[in-house]
Amino acid sequence: MDHNIINIEELSNKIETLIDDNKVSHLRELVEDHYPADIAEAMSKLEEKKIIVALRLLSTDVVAEIFTYFDYDIQEEIINTYSSQQVKELFEEIFTDDIVDILEEMPSNIVKKVLRNSSPESRLQINSILKYEEQSAGSIMSVEYTKLRTTWTAKQAIEVIKEQREETEEISSFYVVDGLNNLKGIIELKTLFFAKPETSISNLMDERIVYVYTSTDQEHVIEQFKKYDIITLPILNSQNKLVGIITVDDVIDVIEEEATEDIHKMAGISPTEDAYFKTSVWKMVRSRSVWLLFLMISATLSQIVISVFMKIYNSNSTGEQQVEQWSISYIVTMLLTPLLTVISGTAGNAGSQSSTMIVRALSLREVETKDFARVMWKELRVASLTGLILVSANFIRMVSIYAVEYKGDINHPELWYSIATLSIAMYLTLIISKLIGGLLPILAKKIKLDPAVMAAPLLTTIVDALSTAIFFSIGLIFFWQQIQGG
Amino acid sequence: MDHNIINIEELSNKIETLIDDNKVSHLRELVEDHYPADIAEAMSKLEEKKIIVALRLLSTDVVAEIFTYFDYDIQEEIINTYSSQQVKELFEEIFTDDIVDILEEMPSNIVKKVLRNSSPESRLQINSILKYEEQSAGSIMSVEYTKLRTTWTAKQAIEVIKEQREETEEISSFYVVDGLNNLKGIIELKTLFFAKPETSISNLMDERIVYVYTSTDQEHVIEQFKKYDIITLPILNSQNKLVGIITVDDVIDVIEEEATEDIHKMAGISPTEDAYFKTSVWKMVRSRSVWLLFLMISATLSQIVISVFMKIYNSNSTGEQQVEQWSISYIVTMLLTPLLTVISGTAGNAGSQSSTMIVRALSLREVETKDFARVMWKELRVASLTGLILVSANFIRMVSIYAVEYKGDINHPELWYSIATLSIAMYLTLIISKLIGGLLPILAKKIKLDPAVMAAPLLTTIVDALSTAIFFSIGLIFFWQQIQGG
Repeated sequence: MDHNIINIEELSNKIETLIDDNKVSHLRELVEDHYPADIAEAMSKLEEKKIIVALRLLSTDVVAEIFTYFDYDIQEEIINTYSSQQVKELFEEIFTDDIVDILEEMPSNIVKKVLRNSSPESRLQINSILKYEEQSAGSIMSVEYTKLRTTWTAKQAIEVIKEQREETEEISSFYVVDGLNNLKGIIELKTLFFAKPETSISNLMDERIVYVYTSTDQEHVIEQFKKYDIITLPILNSQNKLVGIITVDDVIDVIEEEATEDIHKMAGISPTEDAYFKTSVWKMVRSRSVWLLFLMISATLSQIVISVFMKIYNSNSTGEQQVEQWSISYIVTMLLTPLLTVISGTAGNAGSQSSTMIVRALSLREVETKDFARVMWKELRVASLTGLILVSANFIRMVSIYAVEYKGDINHPELWYSIATLSIAMYLTLIISKLIGGLLPILAKKIKLDPAVMAAPLLTTIVDALSTAIFFSIGLIFFWQQIQGG
Repeated sequence: MDHNIINIEELSNKIETLIDDNKVSHLRELVEDHYPADIAEAMSKLEEKKIIVALRLLSTDVVAEIFTYFDYDIQEEIINTYSSQQVKELFEEIFTDDIVDILEEMPSNIVKKVLRNSSPESRLQINSILKYEEQSAGSIMSVEYTKLRTTWTAKQAIEVIKEQREETEEISSFYVVDGLNNLKGIIELKTLFFAKPETSISNLMDERIVYVYTSTDQEHVIEQFKKYDIITLPILNSQNKLVGIITVDDVIDVIEEEATEDIHKMAGISPTEDAYFKTSVWKMVRSRSVWLLFLMISATLSQIVISVFMKIYNSNSTGEQQVEQWSISYIVTMLLTPLLTVISGTAGNAGSQSSTMIVRALSLREVETKDFARVMWKELRVASLTGLILVSANFIRMVSIYAVEYKGDINHPELWYSIATLSIAMYLTLIISKLIGGLLPILAKKIKLDPAVMAAPLLTTIVDALSTAIFFSIGLIFFWQQIQGG
């Protein structure tokens, strides 16, 4: 269907052959015939060494075009192997907002290397953007754009645009400021070109301007683009001076970022900015275990509710059938049943964290179906560590509850068996839920079903039944004697 | 902070005063000084009659600018009250892709009225877009754009652009085709203007073009915009001819639509396209009950697992403590406990459907905190109807399970009490969960907490404990005699 689905593999092979054969001019031609994004994607499939070699064969301005499309680890490798002079030349060709995007993801030694090799002017610009709070308009704005003056004529404006066209972002409207850099209007490129040369800019511009401040939250920035159907948005500082613009193509990434954040939060995952495979296991453990812990501890409420009702149901007056302490009926109704809500809740939450992450990553193409084994391996490690945290917390939780319930006298093997049953079951179901949560969306996609639709309901059903079965099976082992003996 | 937060109310009052005083020229001035989106928002706050009066005072091209920003119900009202001639004039000023957007939401009598009053040419265009499958590139493309020819000079191209500038979408790059309408290249407006007038277009254009087909899924369209950082994307038909373009501002709506779809699906809500308050109660009942039904029926699996284990635990060999049929111990372990997973699962799912919808609607500003009462009223009606469906299905489910379990002999009051307990508890918890699910995100937003973070975990905790308590309380009423009698 689409022109660039077949090409990438082929393109990658072509590039590799040209590098191996050292055909420099052919390589340059090939690169010029394709989109930088495609070239970067094709090159990314090569060994890092070969990428470096390929880039050495290309001119700096071409490398700069490709560079921003590489993943952060390749960018890091390139900056690492480049000399100071090369870094300087490369970054001179890249727009400041892209540099900021890159630097935000890099380790500090790389950031230092880049800043050391930037011109004082661009270092100032980079730092001015870096200083804005994350997710504010200031942190995502561009500072390279052409400003027009109210006092100019159309002809003067066109000259300035022509002069600056290589160094500014390609946009179709320009902002007009007065001598004090106060925003006065906006003017379309077409309007400017079709106007009489001597017309004053102030007569051509539209004075209705939508703007936000550097401190405005990026969510609000998105709203402006949506509401007014605009292509660029001017950014003012607190003194109402024009300091930057945001272009619509940058906003697209922000929209997806915000949606991902919302999706993750609703599944009880603390937001992480990076793509699935870019997020370390430990970071994932942290972002997931906070809510799992909170939810497990909150489940105590349901556990108590069940306990209370079990007592009421068991307190019949005749005494004939009254449940004796430590009998098997007592164990089932007073110890195990109240824990059902804790085990199935934790399993369900853990599973839906994983499936939510994978569903979103699949829809953003951060994860492909072929990454199946990598996902399983990552989920396994995350689950093993998260399990340790949860089980430890649960141990303390259980001991505390029993200590209160049995007025400090928790020295009954049945209580410890019950704690052991829940602990072991919780660890096992956590691992199983996370593996199934990672597996189901990929499986759904593989058989061409919608991962979002398939994963959630199937997951709940499977994980619920499985966790219950595991819990009661382990209970059987610990309480076998009581079941036999009565 | 932002220029347009205070204005809307004020603007609305100003407009109302000008209408009441019949100050036509002042109204026209006011409208021209503001963005169409703001004017539409301000007017929307007035009575429908006043909106119609206001629009009659404005010229058709101004009305056309505002018109697309109104909600569908206001648009419908306007078309209804307009004469055929007025409709014709109005829609001549609106871009075809916007007309299609509007028509897709309108009842068929309105669609007929509009199509009847369109020129044959634009009727053809509208129908050509309407025929494409929903969510395909064809269904969201624009057909009004300027095409350039490979054989033209820069001067000729500029003349054509100047001529067509009023009727085509404002874009900064143009597509170049050959005599057979095959896409040959893309050219920037700037390149064109700064080129020597006699240069041939084929020498100026960039032959690297990203394109998709009319049948391409909109998700793939989004990917192209993200990957290549482009502002427009050309659309080809199956014969590889250029038939339309998609501009980046239209893609923003599509991105949010796709994210909303994913979010809803993950919460077990069949996707509906409309905003929260635009979706009818009955449509919501349908979009939610499908998955609630599926999940409730799937919960049978967990119910069986618990039943099986309860039997094993109760089957101790000595017989001394063996649970007698229809005793209170039997009722608790064999009848009520296996239903725990069904009641808390259904309550949780129903609640998270509501909270997910409200969280998303809040973040897209479709719902504001002041809509609190409206949300509660809507959720109450949705829950009442959904409850009827679920409880009926559950009745059949329970009778079937007991019929199998008790080999057709279900004529024991205890079994019917158990069915009644679950049915009543399910109806009550469904309503309560949906109300809490709608309430929590709004409450969170009101006290300036993040609705997405606060709603999910709190909801689970509250709904779980509440549904369990309601279930066992109702059970107490039905089984009081057995508890007392033993």
